[in-house]
Amino acid sequence: MITSKDNDQLKTIRKLAQRKHRDRAGLVVAEGEDLVDAALEAGLEPELLLRAGEDVEPDLLAGVSTLGSGTRVIGVFKQRDGVLGGELSVYLHGVHDPGNVGTIIRSAHALADGPVILGPDCADPWSPKAVRASMGSAFARPPARAAFADLPGTTIALERGAGVALAEVQIDGPVVVCLGGEREGLPETIANTAGVLAHIPVRDDGPDSLNVATAAAVALYERNRMARYA
Amino acid sequence: MITSKDNDQLKTIRKLAQRKHRDRAGLVVAEGEDLVDAALEAGLEPELLLRAGEDVEPDLLAGVSTLGSGTRVIGVFKQRDGVLGGELSVYLHGVHDPGNVGTIIRSAHALADGPVILGPDCADPWSPKAVRASMGSAFARPPARAAFADLPGTTIALERGAGVALAEVQIDGPVVVCLGGEREGLPETIANTAGVLAHIPVRDDGPDSLNVATAAAVALYERNRMARYA
Repeated sequence: MITSKDNDQLKTIRKLAQRKHRDRAGLVVAEGEDLVDAALEAGLEPELLLRAGEDVEPDLLAGVSTLGSGTRVIGVFKQRDGVLGGELSVYLHGVHDPGNVGTIIRSAHALADGPVILGPDCADPWSPKAVRASMGSAFARPPARAAFADLPGTTIALERGAGVALAEVQIDGPVVVCLGGEREGLPETIANTAGVLAHIPVRDDGPDSLNVATAAAVALYERNRMARYA
Repeated sequence: MITSKDNDQLKTIRKLAQRKHRDRAGLVVAEGEDLVDAALEAGLEPELLLRAGEDVEPDLLAGVSTLGSGTRVIGVFKQRDGVLGGELSVYLHGVHDPGNVGTIIRSAHALADGPVILGPDCADPWSPKAVRASMGSAFARPPARAAFADLPGTTIALERGAGVALAEVQIDGPVVVCLGGEREGLPETIANTAGVLAHIPVRDDGPDSLNVATAAAVALYERNRMARYA
């Protein structure tokens, strides 16, 4: 039983709160039973597994958790890399919010056979907030990393008001839906070189944009629907 | 220029961080230029408007803001009540997360002509987190409150794996899409008495559920698409 906050395993978990340490170690912290279970169910072997009251004093575990008091278990796992492929995947460019990145990983797990592909300037998908928003889907379907130029299949650049309505995009074969950050959108070079430019029809008197995780899910849903009812 | 944290206006703003005070006063705090602008553009008159360096010392304004340092303006406005009606609206039951409630208000502003209707046990749409997630849409299109039994038009209860696929729901006239909290879903009484029971088709090897804000946006998108291409 760990009874000191100076314990090496607790120190490791504390360090992994910082992205540079996560990147260097290639590790991710799963906080709470749901996320630890999701990692184990995805077949990952824990590098560390600490249960409150069994392996460590509950207060000490709470002290290294972003969930705070009541944290019953924390696991540390190796980060995995997703592999490009599938009929449908999502490419993100400059999506800074970890909650959005995690939510999109969850939506792609539900609605696509390919991975979420992270381009430049995206939030770390292995941060506590992103892993929590993914509800553990990051373990079952880890994100991949690739440059836009290396994406497989036909790219659909999704931009407000641009090109054709999503429901009118007729493509056979693998598709990658591409989305940019909420404020900036996609860089012009991507919008100009994508296979298709498309938009989600919205009301003229509505907000300037949809949430990027919302837009990603709608696009994945629509591609599924078209495949289903083609 | 306000130079003391004991100033009555700052005290008011601090109090409004708590739901009971927001409810009692019927007020909402807009933090930051984007949200204050959204409220003003929606035609609301500020009850209070404090600009850093003009009306109040910047540190004091930052001290009453959940955004922290760098907050340039805070406005206090009257909460508004949305009105039932329109061809398409959303009813939420037990959606506890303020970020989800706010995101759904934003999506409905983009994709529906009716309001978001809050049933029991929903997060306060006027909390700082919900207002921020709505990106100010809460001001332009304030949520309504109603019991399920009082909803206008045909209700579609959206539940994982239940009833027909969303794209196969044929209804004429006003529709209310009904969603429950992520863990609990809709109460059985609602699922059993709704006009239609429907689901968003998802992969069998995917997660247990979609994020509720994601599901709401997909449903609104699909109802729009059907109306557009009918």
